[in-house]
Amino acid sequence: MAGNTYGTVFRITTFGESHGVAIGGVIDGCPAGITLDFEAIQQELNRRKPGQSAIVTQRKEPDTVAFYSGIFEGKTTGTPIGFAIKNANQKSKDYSHIKNSFRPSHADYTYTQKYGVRDYRGGGRSSARETASRVVAGAIAKQVLKDITFNAYVSAVGPLKIEKPYDQLDFAEIEKNDVRCPDPVMAQDMETFIKQIRKDGDTVGGVVSCVISGVPVGLGEPVFDKLHAELGKAMLSINAVKGFEYGSGFDGAQLRGSEHNDLFNTDGTTKTNLSGGIQGGISNGMDIYFNVAFKPVATIMQDQDTINDKGEEVVMQGKGRHDPCVVPRAVPIVEAMAALVLVDFYLLNKTIKYS
Amino acid sequence: MAGNTYGTVFRITTFGESHGVAIGGVIDGCPAGITLDFEAIQQELNRRKPGQSAIVTQRKEPDTVAFYSGIFEGKTTGTPIGFAIKNANQKSKDYSHIKNSFRPSHADYTYTQKYGVRDYRGGGRSSARETASRVVAGAIAKQVLKDITFNAYVSAVGPLKIEKPYDQLDFAEIEKNDVRCPDPVMAQDMETFIKQIRKDGDTVGGVVSCVISGVPVGLGEPVFDKLHAELGKAMLSINAVKGFEYGSGFDGAQLRGSEHNDLFNTDGTTKTNLSGGIQGGISNGMDIYFNVAFKPVATIMQDQDTINDKGEEVVMQGKGRHDPCVVPRAVPIVEAMAALVLVDFYLLNKTIKYS
Amino acid sequence: MAGNTYGTVFRITTFGESHGVAIGGVIDGCPAGITLDFEAIQQELNRRKPGQSAIVTQRKEPDTVAFYSGIFEGKTTGTPIGFAIKNANQKSKDYSHIKNSFRPSHADYTYTQKYGVRDYRGGGRSSARETASRVVAGAIAKQVLKDITFNAYVSAVGPLKIEKPYDQLDFAEIEKNDVRCPDPVMAQDMETFIKQIRKDGDTVGGVVSCVISGVPVGLGEPVFDKLHAELGKAMLSINAVKGFEYGSGFDGAQLRGSEHNDLFNTDGTTKTNLSGGIQGGISNGMDIYFNVAFKPVATIMQDQDTINDKGEEVVMQGKGRHDPCVVPRAVPIVEAMAALVLVDFYLLNKTIKYS
Amino acid sequence: MAGNTYGTVFRITTFGESHGVAIGGVIDGCPAGITLDFEAIQQELNRRKPGQSAIVTQRKEPDTVAFYSGIFEGKTTGTPIGFAIKNANQKSKDYSHIKNSFRPSHADYTYTQKYGVRDYRGGGRSSARETASRVVAGAIAKQVLKDITFNAYVSAVGPLKIEKPYDQLDFAEIEKNDVRCPDPVMAQDMETFIKQIRKDGDTVGGVVSCVISGVPVGLGEPVFDKLHAELGKAMLSINAVKGFEYGSGFDGAQLRGSEHNDLFNTDGTTKTNLSGGIQGGISNGMDIYFNVAFKPVATIMQDQDTINDKGEEVVMQGKGRHDPCVVPRAVPIVEAMAALVLVDFYLLNKTIKYS
Repeated sequence: MAGNTYGTVFRITTFGESHGVAIGGVIDGCPAGITLDFEAIQQELNRRKPGQSAIVTQRKEPDTVAFYSGIFEGKTTGTPIGFAIKNANQKSKDYSHIKNSFRPSHADYTYTQKYGVRDYRGGGRSSARETASRVVAGAIAKQVLKDITFNAYVSAVGPLKIEKPYDQLDFAEIEKNDVRCPDPVMAQDMETFIKQIRKDGDTVGGVVSCVISGVPVGLGEPVFDKLHAELGKAMLSINAVKGFEYGSGFDGAQLRGSEHNDLFNTDGTTKTNLSGGIQGGISNGMDIYFNVAFKPVATIMQDQDTINDKGEEVVMQGKGRHDPCVVPRAVPIVEAMAALVLVDFYLLNKTIKYS
Repeated sequence: MAGNTYGTVFRITTFGESHGVAIGGVIDGCPAGITLDFEAIQQELNRRKPGQSAIVTQRKEPDTVAFYSGIFEGKTTGTPIGFAIKNANQKSKDYSHIKNSFRPSHADYTYTQKYGVRDYRGGGRSSARETASRVVAGAIAKQVLKDITFNAYVSAVGPLKIEKPYDQLDFAEIEKNDVRCPDPVMAQDMETFIKQIRKDGDTVGGVVSCVISGVPVGLGEPVFDKLHAELGKAMLSINAVKGFEYGSGFDGAQLRGSEHNDLFNTDGTTKTNLSGGIQGGISNGMDIYFNVAFKPVATIMQDQDTINDKGEEVVMQGKGRHDPCVVPRAVPIVEAMAALVLVDFYLLNKTIKYS
Repeated sequence: MAGNTYGTVFRITTFGESHGVAIGGVIDGCPAGITLDFEAIQQELNRRKPGQSAIVTQRKEPDTVAFYSGIFEGKTTGTPIGFAIKNANQKSKDYSHIKNSFRPSHADYTYTQKYGVRDYRGGGRSSARETASRVVAGAIAKQVLKDITFNAYVSAVGPLKIEKPYDQLDFAEIEKNDVRCPDPVMAQDMETFIKQIRKDGDTVGGVVSCVISGVPVGLGEPVFDKLHAELGKAMLSINAVKGFEYGSGFDGAQLRGSEHNDLFNTDGTTKTNLSGGIQGGISNGMDIYFNVAFKPVATIMQDQDTINDKGEEVVMQGKGRHDPCVVPRAVPIVEAMAALVLVDFYLLNKTIKYS
Repeated sequence: MAGNTYGTVFRITTFGESHGVAIGGVIDGCPAGITLDFEAIQQELNRRKPGQSAIVTQRKEPDTVAFYSGIFEGKTTGTPIGFAIKNANQKSKDYSHIKNSFRPSHADYTYTQKYGVRDYRGGGRSSARETASRVVAGAIAKQVLKDITFNAYVSAVGPLKIEKPYDQLDFAEIEKNDVRCPDPVMAQDMETFIKQIRKDGDTVGGVVSCVISGVPVGLGEPVFDKLHAELGKAMLSINAVKGFEYGSGFDGAQLRGSEHNDLFNTDGTTKTNLSGGIQGGISNGMDIYFNVAFKPVATIMQDQDTINDKGEEVVMQGKGRHDPCVVPRAVPIVEAMAALVLVDFYLLNKTIKYS
């Protein structure tokens, strides 16, 4: 209800503020008997963590996860997996410039109005630091879904955009550059662009695309909980996301049915895939692919006019360590949320048929 | 879990197939003491019903709702509101052409694979007929939210698209034309276009936009259940939807932070509204606006190659009564789902603060 | 949330007031492919319906269920099963004696305080008439659980009580008498006693016991959702229930561990069964058995002092058609709720292990 | 679903095994702006912790809770409250006697069957150690419900039983003796009895009673989620509980309606309270009172015949540190669960009426 839980069968509840003692969570409903690959989990955290390259925030956080329960002799036991990531950066920075003022287009104002109080240190709960807990859960979900692969990548940074469809890209390139763009030439341009944005004391938006392969037919519930509706919700729940489209997406709205329909092969696969791997809210076994639009980060390194909690006009200084563009670090978060959506439907699907 | 329920505090569960005995639902959690305007509810159903104009399906359904419970002497009692809409069209049509074959880009194949069985009459549960039940619930939700207004409209049909921002449109025009487009000139073009599409035996996609005004500050839960994440899920749960964006949307991904940030007025409102009325997942009191992309209807009046349930190639005849373009009838459905999202957060928000 | 839904995977939502248009519900999550035995469903309703014998209320209700959806060619389709039971008795009785007054120990006062309004006709939503919808859902749940048997019976009426343990009773006797007591001699005494209570214009409480056999090992979730905790909640949700105990129950609190422990046979069964078929909240494959205490019906055929909605003292006349003792009609309700608990855990259990 | 979460609006999710790294939980939905009394929270933990007196287990655990989030400058912020209690006792004891064998009437067998694996150290997740996390959440719930008082106490140990009704007891006596019995004479007898049981290497059951005062009228949802149904579930979810009854309870089943009905005073209170403060599932403002039956602890200090995981007969040695009778330490757990039930309905009730 208060919205810190995702999933029904495989359920993650997260806690923690940006500069509190720790962030973490509880994963409930992970099936028993899975031998966990802890290195793979940490590797996903490393892809998300600050300070990993020159184009992301320079905040220092080792982001090492400690597991408290639910695992015995290396295997999941079916009981809840509690975990925490201590905040290295929790101490006494100077927040006087934001303590009583509202950063434009940030959650400062809405939190204060909603709760009557807010933890102003580093954005508190509204910080994207919370997504580290999702990455832990998503990494475990991926290990449950061992036959399904998740490939997210940066497809646009500001006006720079990959035009090729996903099946003409080489996913092996994604982790070879700091932007996580599978087109090496474009990756270079994007990196240069982001560095310029940083020099300008500005930020820029972008798009993360994701392809999910190896999905069994039949995942998704056909009315309110359609597979793509849950994917959409999961992506829109990531900080700074403004839009979601799957398959033909917004472009598909311009097409005719005779152009858009995916004709069948005799094995049930389709000759084209404008449907994006989902029909009637249920996976059809083809690749699922979608785009997620991220707005530019609100915190810029420029002075901005704003107001304080008394409604007085003030000037907000631009300072602190922030990402000039979030999409490179958002790639593992998109994959994590995709895995959390899929694992839930995967487990739920076992109860559908009678036998 | 099986996905036929939407909402937590104000909760709608729907049932019914396209050509079964009846469709309907149960609304649980509607507050007590609301004097219902039954005409307003039926009026919303009329906006959605088939046969209402020359550019929609000519299926005949009066779509009259009967309430079974939860209302006493014209007022809600706080107990569940059960309702049903009888299907006039339930009898013995000829479905032999789809009984054993899978319509391309329809849910026939995925339902059959998921459940091992399907009600093939008119699409069964996968038919958008189910949304009539949502419209009933949404109409009641609107009456709970008496200070909030919902204005959805058609902003694109195929390649024809309104370019003006929403605040330069006259919403009073929406119901004056069959397309439900607030720009009368564009509405005429769209209508002509849809009629040509119908003549071609084809279908076409489109976009519905929606503006929600009068939203109190503080609705939405900040992590997984962000207000826009729920709006996105709700819209993506509507049949044929391929994409959702709010505020600056996909265009916002191209902007810089210095361009995108909404600066404050001293009363907490903002000078611009690229945020789309939501910051950190919580409403900030400004207008919420979003776009919903609909693909073209899969059922076309042309012969198509497809397969049957034995995996044999067959030709599917194009016949039956269908919408050449769903967006005119989708307008009240988008409003209904928006109202269902808002009412849930509105009621939930009462529990947030301590007093 | 508003409490008209039971279950998570197999989920029943009910609606309807005692003297409204209809009662009914929606069953969501019933697996696909089950050939329903409609006669068996109606038979369960007949066991619950009023007017079935001389010792129950003489209200006349045929209680015929109509299914609206979710069933095609006699089989469940995996989509929600909507159903309704029309109220024969909905018309214009004289309720002036209870319209503005509060019946002692009834829900009149609490409903009015909670909702600010109530449907006073026949108790409205607080009437046990609502349980007919549960019986429909429970009858379907039983058909999903074809290897599990449910035997509920009356074990006490007022001071008259069966002393034998359940495994010395002949369940074939249960339906042979109007009381539904498996001990024919005791059944006769109970019937005589209930008739005297009716003559006195009074009511009396009783106990329903239930035995569930054929339960697979492993049902139940070990912390908050223990199998017996859900059974307890389900039973306590039935009108007039004041207590629940399973296995050794309250008597077990007097025993020593050395007396209470159930020692194992080598096949994992136990030599005794004071545990009542559940250990650590999880079924162990032995019979589950429990007792449910029902208070006497609050509506008696005697004048009672009470107050009206202005807080004035008034005399409430005893009139209307009511059960002198609810336990005979509660037997199928207890079985229905037990089946709803079991089916949910049964389906959920499929997701536990990894493979 | 996997059952490690309790509550809907105010929601606690717990994690942790008896001898793992830590136990703890996440509280989601706690209202913002509550100044927490941390000493009061720790005090509740101290009432539950092992080693507190001569009649409980001598396991040493400081049970100090560390809060990780959701609290800022001493006040709740409306964001999730993460917390953990490190296990002092997690290291390397000798479990060889239970590693491959199943303790009679314990959860060893059912866990192994359900999950295919179990953490055998000290009972793992099935240990009542998990309830420490509930006590933390319950202590915070009590602080939200500042006008409601919870008084639980031991009313029976084995055959020794308080006969006085609760309103003739002096609750100030409860914490003055180790048994937590409000009758000082009986408390002495119980203590002597428990010490003898311990000397015998045996265990014994008992009953905890609880009285909740100051409850506002209107809490509880009238159908499946009746207030007493949730109380029942919450109590039955505590380790070793076999029964629950409220108000007149099982004795009430023997009464006539004319004896059982609670007549009204003109202010809406009742002259008697056999209803136990709840009518139709909704609180009526009178004291809520109920009894909870606990079976004797399964682990006894005597050798027992049992089987191992190969189905071979083995003798299980009685050793380790265990409670001879759990009811003294169960008192704060019963209060905690009662507070968790009440706080959820209290917050939910704010959404019922329309204004």
